[in-house]
Amino acid sequence: MLFSATHFSRISLSDHYVVQCSYHKAFVVYAGCNLVLAAAAAALCAYVAPAAAGSGIPEVKAYLNGVDAYSILAPSTLFVKIFGSIGGVSAGFVLGKEGPMVHTGACIASLLGQGGSRKYHLTWTWLRYFKNDRDRRDLITCGAAAGVAAAFRAPVGGVLFALEEAASWWRSALLWRTFFTTAVVAVVLRTFIDFCRSGNCGLFGQGGLIMFDLSSSVPAYGTPDLIAVIVLGIVGGIFGSLYNFLIDKTLRTYSIFNERGAPFKILLTVAVSLLTSCCSYGLPWLAKCTPCPPDAQDQCPTIGRSGNYKNFQCPPNQYNDLASLFLNTNDDAIRNLFSGGTDNEFCLSTLFIFFIGVYCLGIVTYGIAIPSGLFIPVILAGASYGRLVGTFLGSLSKLDKGLFALLGAASFLGGTMRMTVSVCVILLELTNDLLMLPLVMLVLLVSKTVADCFNKGVYDQMVKMKGFPFMEAHAEPYMRNLVAGDVVSGPLITLSGVERVGNIVHAIRLTGHNGFPVVDEPPFSVAPELCGLVLRTHLLVLLKGKRFTKERVSTGAADVLQRFGAYDFAKAGSGKGVKLEEIDINEEEMEMYVDLHPITNRSPYTVVETMSLAKAAILFRELGLRHLCVVPKTPGRPPIVGILTRHDFMPEHILGFFPHIKHHG
Amino acid sequence: MLFSATHFSRISLSDHYVVQCSYHKAFVVYAGCNLVLAAAAAALCAYVAPAAAGSGIPEVKAYLNGVDAYSILAPSTLFVKIFGSIGGVSAGFVLGKEGPMVHTGACIASLLGQGGSRKYHLTWTWLRYFKNDRDRRDLITCGAAAGVAAAFRAPVGGVLFALEEAASWWRSALLWRTFFTTAVVAVVLRTFIDFCRSGNCGLFGQGGLIMFDLSSSVPAYGTPDLIAVIVLGIVGGIFGSLYNFLIDKTLRTYSIFNERGAPFKILLTVAVSLLTSCCSYGLPWLAKCTPCPPDAQDQCPTIGRSGNYKNFQCPPNQYNDLASLFLNTNDDAIRNLFSGGTDNEFCLSTLFIFFIGVYCLGIVTYGIAIPSGLFIPVILAGASYGRLVGTFLGSLSKLDKGLFALLGAASFLGGTMRMTVSVCVILLELTNDLLMLPLVMLVLLVSKTVADCFNKGVYDQMVKMKGFPFMEAHAEPYMRNLVAGDVVSGPLITLSGVERVGNIVHAIRLTGHNGFPVVDEPPFSVAPELCGLVLRTHLLVLLKGKRFTKERVSTGAADVLQRFGAYDFAKAGSGKGVKLEEIDINEEEMEMYVDLHPITNRSPYTVVETMSLAKAAILFRELGLRHLCVVPKTPGRPPIVGILTRHDFMPEHILGFFPHIKHHG
Repeated sequence: MLFSATHFSRISLSDHYVVQCSYHKAFVVYAGCNLVLAAAAAALCAYVAPAAAGSGIPEVKAYLNGVDAYSILAPSTLFVKIFGSIGGVSAGFVLGKEGPMVHTGACIASLLGQGGSRKYHLTWTWLRYFKNDRDRRDLITCGAAAGVAAAFRAPVGGVLFALEEAASWWRSALLWRTFFTTAVVAVVLRTFIDFCRSGNCGLFGQGGLIMFDLSSSVPAYGTPDLIAVIVLGIVGGIFGSLYNFLIDKTLRTYSIFNERGAPFKILLTVAVSLLTSCCSYGLPWLAKCTPCPPDAQDQCPTIGRSGNYKNFQCPPNQYNDLASLFLNTNDDAIRNLFSGGTDNEFCLSTLFIFFIGVYCLGIVTYGIAIPSGLFIPVILAGASYGRLVGTFLGSLSKLDKGLFALLGAASFLGGTMRMTVSVCVILLELTNDLLMLPLVMLVLLVSKTVADCFNKGVYDQMVKMKGFPFMEAHAEPYMRNLVAGDVVSGPLITLSGVERVGNIVHAIRLTGHNGFPVVDEPPFSVAPELCGLVLRTHLLVLLKGKRFTKERVSTGAADVLQRFGAYDFAKAGSGKGVKLEEIDINEEEMEMYVDLHPITNRSPYTVVETMSLAKAAILFRELGLRHLCVVPKTPGRPPIVGILTRHDFMPEHILGFFPHIKHHG
Repeated sequence: MLFSATHFSRISLSDHYVVQCSYHKAFVVYAGCNLVLAAAAAALCAYVAPAAAGSGIPEVKAYLNGVDAYSILAPSTLFVKIFGSIGGVSAGFVLGKEGPMVHTGACIASLLGQGGSRKYHLTWTWLRYFKNDRDRRDLITCGAAAGVAAAFRAPVGGVLFALEEAASWWRSALLWRTFFTTAVVAVVLRTFIDFCRSGNCGLFGQGGLIMFDLSSSVPAYGTPDLIAVIVLGIVGGIFGSLYNFLIDKTLRTYSIFNERGAPFKILLTVAVSLLTSCCSYGLPWLAKCTPCPPDAQDQCPTIGRSGNYKNFQCPPNQYNDLASLFLNTNDDAIRNLFSGGTDNEFCLSTLFIFFIGVYCLGIVTYGIAIPSGLFIPVILAGASYGRLVGTFLGSLSKLDKGLFALLGAASFLGGTMRMTVSVCVILLELTNDLLMLPLVMLVLLVSKTVADCFNKGVYDQMVKMKGFPFMEAHAEPYMRNLVAGDVVSGPLITLSGVERVGNIVHAIRLTGHNGFPVVDEPPFSVAPELCGLVLRTHLLVLLKGKRFTKERVSTGAADVLQRFGAYDFAKAGSGKGVKLEEIDINEEEMEMYVDLHPITNRSPYTVVETMSLAKAAILFRELGLRHLCVVPKTPGRPPIVGILTRHDFMPEHILGFFPHIKHHG
């Protein structure tokens, strides 16, 4: 969908009238265009929004788990994600636009959930209704679903992606909401496609809602085919987990380089861009020219437009099969690999070179400082691998080579991303062939099972590498032998029901805690008892209101209701709330009192200190908590032992307490 | 898939050589065959397993919510469900086999989860690993998914059905397991279909994995079409909610009749069978004969086999369009309605009569004492409604009439069942046409939204009518004004950490409680404190072991581990555990003591009595609890206030305490 100078330069290259010596000039133009685009995208990313680099799916996944990392969903990230992605795809890198589109969708949703952007003067009052954790989380889930739906033109696949990969909490209302979102995406896409089909958009918007139509090939398969498919799945799973392993190593290596500053990021991107240009221009010279098949459905050779059968350096009526893959847009290369009824189009060596090239380029490309998705490189590598296996097996299996390419892509997707249902539906929606459903399911299950033996899914791996405190859905086995009281880390700072302003300011200034337990003491209760939990953000809003009293008396809720509006305590955008520095409290006010009862959550979830840590972790995770109060088992002690936050459940934290426990992460 | 005498009698009826007077004889044979099959199915159901009547989806849904009603998943229910369903479908009723297949799948899964059936001497030792609540629940979810996958030949639809309608708790491992199950179903189905295609199975197994292939019709639609589709969705939603309303009324009326005993159940079934036979044989006489279209793809008229264009009473080369719908299998009728490129096959009056007939027959049929699914009647009524609207609009919309039928079916499914993603995917898998995806999504969303204004989904309605204590995913608004202590109902029976056997026996005999709090008292603790929760089933197993002591001493876990095996405390099948009557305890033993600590759950989830009831309800629901301990806020009182069970969260229970609260159920 994204066309650029590169695209046109490729087309002009396939013109066979250029004379030998001008090939060098052509390479300079081609590599130069790629380099400029890559450098521009990298510069945007390095200087404006470093958070926009990479896929974005791990960040969205972490956000939906409750991790609100810095500027992940900021408007600047959105801007760089869109334009950086256009630059990166146009620069001819082996990367996709799917991950960035998911991130883009999430950013737009977050912007809506914050009530627009105050910084850029884009605010809408009615959006304040979404200013709470749950609605914002729902919106961002819908945004992620819309991203996949738009990227693959797969509305149902988008819903399932949000369910299977993105969301940590799911409820039936969310299913219905994501489905509505993707339905709207489908209708809008369809309208634009219909509009563009009538020739209003130039080269944009070619193709329909089905990207790679395979529906002509009707598979009929027997036992040997099934065995071939299972073997394909096993090997695909191994290659997929190897891909994850290598990406992890590359990212760690790159991070040493990237940490040195923005110029180094751009330098790395430029180097990878040059490597990519050399590969895609240089490697096709290794392939021999093939005569055009007499029964080709496409034009052969294609000159001056995108498509199959690239002429490259060949004489008329011949094509270079490696150029048809390498010197092409990624979408067209996938379409060529998936195409049915073209069993002899690519020879074995071509597929082998392309597979190795794309596999390695995909690994070295991910991690450079531009928005880059993983779906397209994995599908490209998988499709070439599948077609390679299909061609290698030759007469042993009667299945179409295009179908083999599809199954290979499925096996790689299963092996790297470990998604099953969503990948299956996305592939079906991409290829419009429901008859191959059993085979796709089989290959996905096999490859996922095999790959799960070696390592985690690629997104889980990145979430871990980025250090996000991600709460897993299950409790770790060693947690069963610990109790909640074991991992509470001090010092605990409690506030009184009616507290001196100075104490609140000190508590906020000295700690980074986001929640403080409120304890009622005599004369407000008979004995000290846990009243509830108060949030840092709410304390700041209350302090800013400055309704303090000289005496230590409970003023009740009426006063707060009078002073504050319904949405003053609503959740602000990340990093947008009231800050302590903004509040000017003088010495006299510091000695005054404020009643915390009206803003205290009187029903915090609590566990007894002897509760199994595993059960506390499940409570924390299933209810999506941020704070869990630990209360003492026996009376006669202070009414609260401590507060558990998500950091207290992280293996690193627990293993700090108990170094003898072994953790297999 | 289910063929029978009825089927053959129908085929012979379409033979045009029968003379006029023999039509009466034909009716007697036709109605007689139907009646015998219906009576046999009803007798099986009424005498062997009354739980097998109806769809079974509400029961499965309730089970997965934690409601283990009597003999819902028993082997006898399984048997009757299979053979009763065959009888019912063969008897020509307007009912489906989908609901029963879901129930069948769940029954088989439950049988595996119980380690087989001891009663029928089918046990496997290795299945004991599934003998716990969670694994059994997972297995039954997979069984339900397999049922839908097999009924509609829709593997992905099955997964989504399990997610959207059946399951109350969902986790990513379950997605993967249901997907595996339905993949196996797809491969097995495919193998059987391929085997049967070579002519080994007679009339069985016709058709492929796609039941109603629509892929020929490529829709291109404009704004008027979109408006037509939205109107179709609105009216479909209204008809769908009306269907739910009428089914509810019919079920309530029938239940008065059915409660009077098995003979009355059979009588009702016979009456409905006669009504159905009269309609399907009598109504086609109202339709005029139509000349066969010259360009018909099917044979016209079809004689001696299933298919389109039934000859009925017409002269050669003509067909009766109403007979093609009524006097046909339900599957073929749907196929005829969905068929594309046959815009003039059915005239307006025919569709109108069929729509009214099927709509009413569907309502009166559900509720009789045979296994009966709701999908097929709803799809039939919806498809005829859609085709009726399509034919009525005529030239206003360019969409194919078969597509209108599909959209009509979608609107009815959305209006009655209120499922979105799963119905969408099931319809896509049934019809193999991804290009109409945006339209199907749109119509589903519109009809569900409209119908939600009037009443609940049909399965939710039935769950409520059957009186299952179903825990909703959200807390009711009035719960926010109550606290957990408000709804605790007494008297509370607590056990000591080391308890007299007599007390335990009394507690079990006198109450129906399934969980008892265990309180440690001096000398086992300094002050009385809550030790944990012990389950009735575990107490019974412990009593059966008879390891009692004369003195009140703690024996510790070693003794229990020595006496009992790892799976003695595993969850037994419903109603299969140790019973109090089986344990023979003499007077002397009644005075002895037993240590409950080893079998006590030391980490029960607790809430403080002042916790908001809404938050307690969410804790209860999200963690899938059966017991929730309520502890006192202030020290110096007994360490436990009461136990909340799912019954305590039911509106009926709460409104009994607080009659002034208004509940809009």
